[in-house]
Amino acid sequence: MEIFYQPEILAGVHELPAEESKHCVKVLRHESGDVIHVTDGRGALYKVRILEANHKKCTFNIISHTRKEPKTYWINLAITPTKSNERTELLLEKAVEFGVDEISFYFGRHSERRKLNTERLEKKAIVAMKQSQQFKLPKLNLYQSFQGCLKATPVHHQKLIAHVDSENPYHLMDVAERGKHYTIFVGPEGDFSEDELIESFNAGFTKVSLGENRLRTETAGLAACHILNLINR
Amino acid sequence: MEIFYQPEILAGVHELPAEESKHCVKVLRHESGDVIHVTDGRGALYKVRILEANHKKCTFNIISHTRKEPKTYWINLAITPTKSNERTELLLEKAVEFGVDEISFYFGRHSERRKLNTERLEKKAIVAMKQSQQFKLPKLNLYQSFQGCLKATPVHHQKLIAHVDSENPYHLMDVAERGKHYTIFVGPEGDFSEDELIESFNAGFTKVSLGENRLRTETAGLAACHILNLINR
Repeated sequence: MEIFYQPEILAGVHELPAEESKHCVKVLRHESGDVIHVTDGRGALYKVRILEANHKKCTFNIISHTRKEPKTYWINLAITPTKSNERTELLLEKAVEFGVDEISFYFGRHSERRKLNTERLEKKAIVAMKQSQQFKLPKLNLYQSFQGCLKATPVHHQKLIAHVDSENPYHLMDVAERGKHYTIFVGPEGDFSEDELIESFNAGFTKVSLGENRLRTETAGLAACHILNLINR
Repeated sequence: MEIFYQPEILAGVHELPAEESKHCVKVLRHESGDVIHVTDGRGALYKVRILEANHKKCTFNIISHTRKEPKTYWINLAITPTKSNERTELLLEKAVEFGVDEISFYFGRHSERRKLNTERLEKKAIVAMKQSQQFKLPKLNLYQSFQGCLKATPVHHQKLIAHVDSENPYHLMDVAERGKHYTIFVGPEGDFSEDELIESFNAGFTKVSLGENRLRTETAGLAACHILNLINR
């Protein structure tokens, strides 16, 4: 099933955005009268009939819609962009496939990258959402500092930080509680700074392990999302 | 800790291969007398002292060695190469990071790619092994057909195939038994053919789900490796 995206459908916008119109009409050769599926990226899937198959502004009529049962949990992955943009995009794609609700990028003390094109990431997220047949677009945030990201953590979230030291913290699988809202921090290859760790503990964060092997930043982010989804399956 | 790779160290070869020598001497500027770490890719890590820091043939003396406790389980991921080589390499890297013992590539009925450069993949596996600080290189196999790969599955393996149909099979997390040896098949984007499915069931394979979302081939392979490792953590 091919899915198209129109975030403003609930506000009465009954046409596809330019890029989606082009894909629908030029690439997939849809014609007026064809039935297609459109999501608002907020959990709803609309079955619509094309009115005018215009490749810049494909209009439609709504036939019916279904809304996915909202999940009982929420995953906010707080992660630093990797040195290579490619790996950040990869993380985003896979995290969306596994299921993530929010990705909070932050520039930490040891982060190797200090710029991030969130617009490009947003586009990648839309593609991944549609490809994995989901109807909810994760929220993307960008914080200029670790502290800013830390302070933005909602109070009711289970607060976790992926960091292994001599105290050998418990595995995320054993620490995360089912049905909660989670914020989990993943650090850069150079790890969190001492200050960042102390600040996170003061803010009520618990150290967790993601397993024995040393994982790259993006792999750690993926592992965290996957585990939190597995716990709530 | 930087790790170098010499698979024949146990057979008495006390020098690094050409590429490793170059990296050790030219890039990292190691000199004779320096202590470095070398793995044989079979579970052992050697502490060695450089004798001659030759950038083509860096010789060394063994100081000591440690051997990792062998795992009680074995993961054989049977997967079809993805259309894009990049995604196959990505799968390999992440599977090694999470921990995989064997990857059996096969060309199935609906596989979009019919060629695979296993030599290049072998190199990528070595890099990922060293990067994730592991001392065991996964075995890479290539089968020209699904049937060939199926027949090569050792009898004592728990036989699993990632395929969801109207019977809504149980989640891999609930089906895989701890401490076993596993072979898990992951299909191409176009899924397994009917024939392939029937053949796998006749060979004793059990259908399992990897979760609700539709995953790309390489993401499914990753999820399988990660889950089997989590069960045995």
